[in-house]
Amino acid sequence: MFDYIEKLKEFIRHPSVSTDSRCGEGMRGAREFVSGLLGSMGFAVEVVPTALHPIVFAQRAGDPAWPHVIIYGHYDVQPADPLELWTTPPFEPTIRGNRIYGRGAADNKGPLLTNIAAVARLLEKNPRLPLRITFLIEGEEEMGSPSFPAFLEKFSDRLKQADFVYLSDTALPNERQVVVTCGLRGLALFDVNVTGPKGDLHSGLHGGVLMNPIQALAEICATLHTPDGRVNVPGFYDDVLDVQPWERDELKKLEADESRYAEFLGIDTFYTPPGYSPFEAIRFQPTLEFNGIGGGYQGEGSKTVIPSKAFAKISCRLVPNQRPDRIKQLVMAAIRARAPRGVRIDFVDQHQGEPYVVVPPGRSNTPPGQSPVLARAFRAADAAVTEIWGRPPLYLREGGSVPIIAEIKRVTGLDSVMIGLFLPEDNLHAPNESFNLDVMKKGVETAERLLAAVATA
Amino acid sequence: MFDYIEKLKEFIRHPSVSTDSRCGEGMRGAREFVSGLLGSMGFAVEVVPTALHPIVFAQRAGDPAWPHVIIYGHYDVQPADPLELWTTPPFEPTIRGNRIYGRGAADNKGPLLTNIAAVARLLEKNPRLPLRITFLIEGEEEMGSPSFPAFLEKFSDRLKQADFVYLSDTALPNERQVVVTCGLRGLALFDVNVTGPKGDLHSGLHGGVLMNPIQALAEICATLHTPDGRVNVPGFYDDVLDVQPWERDELKKLEADESRYAEFLGIDTFYTPPGYSPFEAIRFQPTLEFNGIGGGYQGEGSKTVIPSKAFAKISCRLVPNQRPDRIKQLVMAAIRARAPRGVRIDFVDQHQGEPYVVVPPGRSNTPPGQSPVLARAFRAADAAVTEIWGRPPLYLREGGSVPIIAEIKRVTGLDSVMIGLFLPEDNLHAPNESFNLDVMKKGVETAERLLAAVATA
Repeated sequence: MFDYIEKLKEFIRHPSVSTDSRCGEGMRGAREFVSGLLGSMGFAVEVVPTALHPIVFAQRAGDPAWPHVIIYGHYDVQPADPLELWTTPPFEPTIRGNRIYGRGAADNKGPLLTNIAAVARLLEKNPRLPLRITFLIEGEEEMGSPSFPAFLEKFSDRLKQADFVYLSDTALPNERQVVVTCGLRGLALFDVNVTGPKGDLHSGLHGGVLMNPIQALAEICATLHTPDGRVNVPGFYDDVLDVQPWERDELKKLEADESRYAEFLGIDTFYTPPGYSPFEAIRFQPTLEFNGIGGGYQGEGSKTVIPSKAFAKISCRLVPNQRPDRIKQLVMAAIRARAPRGVRIDFVDQHQGEPYVVVPPGRSNTPPGQSPVLARAFRAADAAVTEIWGRPPLYLREGGSVPIIAEIKRVTGLDSVMIGLFLPEDNLHAPNESFNLDVMKKGVETAERLLAAVATA
Repeated sequence: MFDYIEKLKEFIRHPSVSTDSRCGEGMRGAREFVSGLLGSMGFAVEVVPTALHPIVFAQRAGDPAWPHVIIYGHYDVQPADPLELWTTPPFEPTIRGNRIYGRGAADNKGPLLTNIAAVARLLEKNPRLPLRITFLIEGEEEMGSPSFPAFLEKFSDRLKQADFVYLSDTALPNERQVVVTCGLRGLALFDVNVTGPKGDLHSGLHGGVLMNPIQALAEICATLHTPDGRVNVPGFYDDVLDVQPWERDELKKLEADESRYAEFLGIDTFYTPPGYSPFEAIRFQPTLEFNGIGGGYQGEGSKTVIPSKAFAKISCRLVPNQRPDRIKQLVMAAIRARAPRGVRIDFVDQHQGEPYVVVPPGRSNTPPGQSPVLARAFRAADAAVTEIWGRPPLYLREGGSVPIIAEIKRVTGLDSVMIGLFLPEDNLHAPNESFNLDVMKKGVETAERLLAAVATA
């Protein structure tokens, strides 16, 4: 039988950091691993070149009468630094207890392999199963999928023949409760650079006559939130979709515990926009975060310098129907308007992604005329989760971003059924990332049931 | 004749970065160079061990009837980074035009060697000259002279036998006008560390529920100045010594050009406390400066992380009669009081130094009973400068800090006569540091006259 744990170890061993130009071999290794695996399962594999990291496109024709499912995933991972905080090396997969540790274990190699394993096992049991499946596995998710839109446009005719997209690149709130993710936050990222004097200056000889770019940057950044936790940029909230009562009710069923969450984060107080609990704020409200800041001397001891430059890396998480382009314009305009005299401001645009929302059948805001196949997919998911996990899934929006989901919708019209498999304690994007092997086992079983039932649910 | 340019090249070649533990050999080399040089000039050299970098203490007994002059300097230099901004390598001295380039060329190897050269030449011309000189050359100036106070206490009986201190570790405003520095700003340095969640977090999964430590740090830093350029900390200005009318008048004689200064700095607007021109602000007003800031992801591209920690390196330049301990307490208390909820604040204390002021004879605020030898030293300096440079020196306080000057005064009671030799364009503490060789030549001649005349002026 398909040994998904051994396969996952092999997958993790390839250091496929898409943003790191030194990781070319790791990227190729991960790509060849997944292509080879799908090929051995009888899929027709195409490796589609892009400007940077090729996309694996693998199809099984199956029976034309069956729903055609696109299974999405990505073979690239986040950078592993800071390395010194890992208990075991990030690209040497290690099992401790019921967890496998390694960069990408949970994002997205484990969950992707869960769905591949489900297909493999279904076909092992019945090689003639009429499954119609297209795997779409990209290598630039962690850099914002820059090549994916062009790929979608180029392959849109073939992709439009599918009925829906299925993926596991979202979160499981705890080991007992599955969530079908019905919305994702978008992203708008950019750097702001502040330049003061033309070179670094001695703070004794010149201190007291000019605006220090670190001070200017701090003053700018300090204006971007209100004390009560809202983003302080005119127009920022204009297009925010109001949360629906059923969404708040559904979230209550999660029975999430605020004090345990605070303990997990290691904080003693939350900082949320007024009117939103922490669990609501993550899902239903946009953010403006500082992902990094730098300038001047950062080494040991001291250096009495007034630096020439300072910068901050800013990202906004967006909710439907905010648009990344407009949000970037608004925030950049606010920054320019608020910059103190004596410094120059420029921006480096980074990637972005639209927010996404899909409403399951039967909710107050389900759009009229929703595709019957999509509705069947949601019912199949509900039944599979209920059977394997002992309780039905919750239908919730999530705080994370998978920008290509909105892009697929825009180009092909297809919605996505997202079953989350990584847990809060999986340390995504952080040291000691891991994936829960009990979750993986149930995940494989859930996907098996779901994929076997999409024609009939 | 003593070839000070070749000697200076040799001195610069030793990479004596006191704060860099990898520079042990460079420190030893610079120290042995200067000890050997003074030994060859007939000085009795003691290399006094300290906890870190030994102090060179070299004496020439001379005639007990002569004033005993301590000449101070330091053999350590600032770190050379960022290396890529140097035109020629920092520890390969290179002459271009009338300048010698290299780390430490102006701070303090060139000026120190100027004074050594003056003594060497005087003794070459007349080996029996009754000069009574003690060289005091330390290796920890760029780290705040941590070992110097204990050394002063230990050697205080011998040091108290001297009459005054002479040094060149201050600035020359331009190539025509010498300044006798009558005051130095003090320093109070510390790092502020802000800690939010216990680990770095994914900004999608957790963004919107907690205070980001970069945001908290920015909000704190933004409170520390008023828009009109004053430090916004209660009590900060309480002990500031008012500038004297003669000091403002003296500064006017400098005929410093604000627009040329702005051009030199590469800024289009000054940012000074109200009531002070840029040239006054540097000399007569304290500052609070951010020397560095860091937190989160600072690499290429983006990483959507909420960091666990962020920090800023803060330094205050102090004027008489501010006290570093009190200023640190005030600023730290303000930071603690202003920190938003949800983060923890801690401080790393760095070094500090008292401000210093000495008033030349005959000014409105010359203290009664000023030592007649000190008054003679000022007159000898005035005469030597007037003769060599064609115009008398100005008597000005300076923005930089030489914390040991106040410490020497406290322990031994000795005042200092400071003749500045480095120019604003010498790039102290920055890439492409250099020293003007025309200035060095005049500096040697000035020191020769001054030292020959201190008994009689």
